[in-house]
Amino acid sequence: MSVTIALDAMGGDHGPDVVVPAALSVLKENQDLKLILVGDQEILTGVLQQQGADVGPRLQIRHTSQVVAMDELPSVALRTKKDSSMRVAINLVQEGKASACVSAGNTGALMATSRFVLKTLTGIDRPAIITALPTMNGHTHMLDLGANVDSSADALFQFAVMGSVLVQAVDNNPAPKIGLLNIGEEEIKGNERVKEAARLLAQSDINYVGYVEGDDIYKGTVDVVVCDGFVGNVALKTSEGVAKMITHFMKQGFARNPFAKLAALIAMPVLKALKHKIDPRRYNGASLVGLNGIVIKSHGSADVFAFANAIKEAVLEVDKSVPARINQQLDTLLTKQQVG
Amino acid sequence: MSVTIALDAMGGDHGPDVVVPAALSVLKENQDLKLILVGDQEILTGVLQQQGADVGPRLQIRHTSQVVAMDELPSVALRTKKDSSMRVAINLVQEGKASACVSAGNTGALMATSRFVLKTLTGIDRPAIITALPTMNGHTHMLDLGANVDSSADALFQFAVMGSVLVQAVDNNPAPKIGLLNIGEEEIKGNERVKEAARLLAQSDINYVGYVEGDDIYKGTVDVVVCDGFVGNVALKTSEGVAKMITHFMKQGFARNPFAKLAALIAMPVLKALKHKIDPRRYNGASLVGLNGIVIKSHGSADVFAFANAIKEAVLEVDKSVPARINQQLDTLLTKQQVG
Repeated sequence: MSVTIALDAMGGDHGPDVVVPAALSVLKENQDLKLILVGDQEILTGVLQQQGADVGPRLQIRHTSQVVAMDELPSVALRTKKDSSMRVAINLVQEGKASACVSAGNTGALMATSRFVLKTLTGIDRPAIITALPTMNGHTHMLDLGANVDSSADALFQFAVMGSVLVQAVDNNPAPKIGLLNIGEEEIKGNERVKEAARLLAQSDINYVGYVEGDDIYKGTVDVVVCDGFVGNVALKTSEGVAKMITHFMKQGFARNPFAKLAALIAMPVLKALKHKIDPRRYNGASLVGLNGIVIKSHGSADVFAFANAIKEAVLEVDKSVPARINQQLDTLLTKQQVG
Repeated sequence: MSVTIALDAMGGDHGPDVVVPAALSVLKENQDLKLILVGDQEILTGVLQQQGADVGPRLQIRHTSQVVAMDELPSVALRTKKDSSMRVAINLVQEGKASACVSAGNTGALMATSRFVLKTLTGIDRPAIITALPTMNGHTHMLDLGANVDSSADALFQFAVMGSVLVQAVDNNPAPKIGLLNIGEEEIKGNERVKEAARLLAQSDINYVGYVEGDDIYKGTVDVVVCDGFVGNVALKTSEGVAKMITHFMKQGFARNPFAKLAALIAMPVLKALKHKIDPRRYNGASLVGLNGIVIKSHGSADVFAFANAIKEAVLEVDKSVPARINQQLDTLLTKQQVG
């Protein structure tokens, strides 16, 4: 069956220059896919021409006159940018004209607009942001990554449910191991919200394995790491920082003198394999879970390879009917929670 | 002038086997230093003999009969381990018989006992844990790393004061740049406590430069990163996790086949320099700031090189009179804050 995905073609640091080639590359790989480029018709037509491509039955343009700026306040975007590429891409999902949308634009605006247009699933207070991350033995998923600060125990429980169902679906993992991010230093560990969430999870049908600490994320101790959005966002950005620093020192070291440059050449295959393993572009495409619809957030600075991966994530979630599955499980789990 | 430091010789994963050789190595380097090994006399004498060393005017043993276990509840340790190596090492600071103490033991117990025995400085509600971390262009300091969860705006402000004064002292930096750790995703950024702390800092005499995000830690954007202890602990452990994963993949890659092994040999000088740059052992020795006295926490798994660095951190803080300086600045800054 053919799947249609709407792309916010103007979003992100590079806009159509990245979105259009990424769209063309994914269309080439996946013959059942249809894409709608949402954005300025003239600009998009120009970029398509540069790429030696054109619209057709599998690639349409939906013209819009506005763009949400990367630093625009979400509330302002929501109120004043009703014909933005971001808003219209989300509208297409709401209208059933697309099964998912992908945007590299302003995260806050994407979250606020998605929530306003698509609404959250019954039982979910606010959507969360989830992404896959590399680990020593494969990958894990982590949420929330910044949509919610000061999350309550109930919110953390909802994140766990959504993470569990998403991983069941996309990884064909029948009982994902769920860990609650905590610290080991306090008297009886962590803060009250985390402790209460642990109690809720222990009583639920979720495969909750207990507390995990920061270093467990990359050990691959669990399949889903659940945390407040402030904490998750700091952990994610900190990880990027460490990886960049190490890469920086390696580049510096291998350029220090002719001998080091020669060593770099010889070590190249190993260094390339390492780069591939931890390449954040491979994991590009975070999901806004908890909505009546699929919205994928690409990193703002994504290149063509990275944005193409975000589109593929959207296709995968459509194939696996992620929101419908979460909805189903929420019914079961939240009812049980209320009865219990 | 000679400085005396008390060492919790039984603490940490390796106890005397690490503490004693580290003590001997630092004593050799620093002729003005005196150390007191606090712990079981018989065991310590045995380890000294193994090392071909003995007690003398610069190295004493203070016998204690108890040890605080690594997983012991802080409240239990405080109540029942009054003759533990940790407690007595802290007592020696309180009694003026040592100018600082160093322990690789249970962080929670060390924090609770230090606070009970030494008391906090006037104006400080709870001590915080601060450590140096490597950055692309040198190093930065970060606090709190796990002593306080759900820190209030006032607590974050106090962390900033303590961090600023400590870095002034140990780095000879007259006006350390202070950043408040935050996330960029929310409508008006971050949570209420962080926003309120930003207002307090902006009005103060501290060189507050604004919000920083997780990746700024390792960019070296600021000299002191201020955050809640839950967030800081997760960031620190996550960083360790990323570094370990990258190291793991590199080792794996360079062992894959004979060619890779050869490449590893050739690249060895560069890889060693990299390892040195990000070696956490170089940064071992976190300070419990905000106390009437100097208490340094070594990583529990520290080896001799790492524990020796923690002792050196203690000596440096004694030389620079860190608690007295913090006390002085607190008077000025907190008075101003109350007036303003």
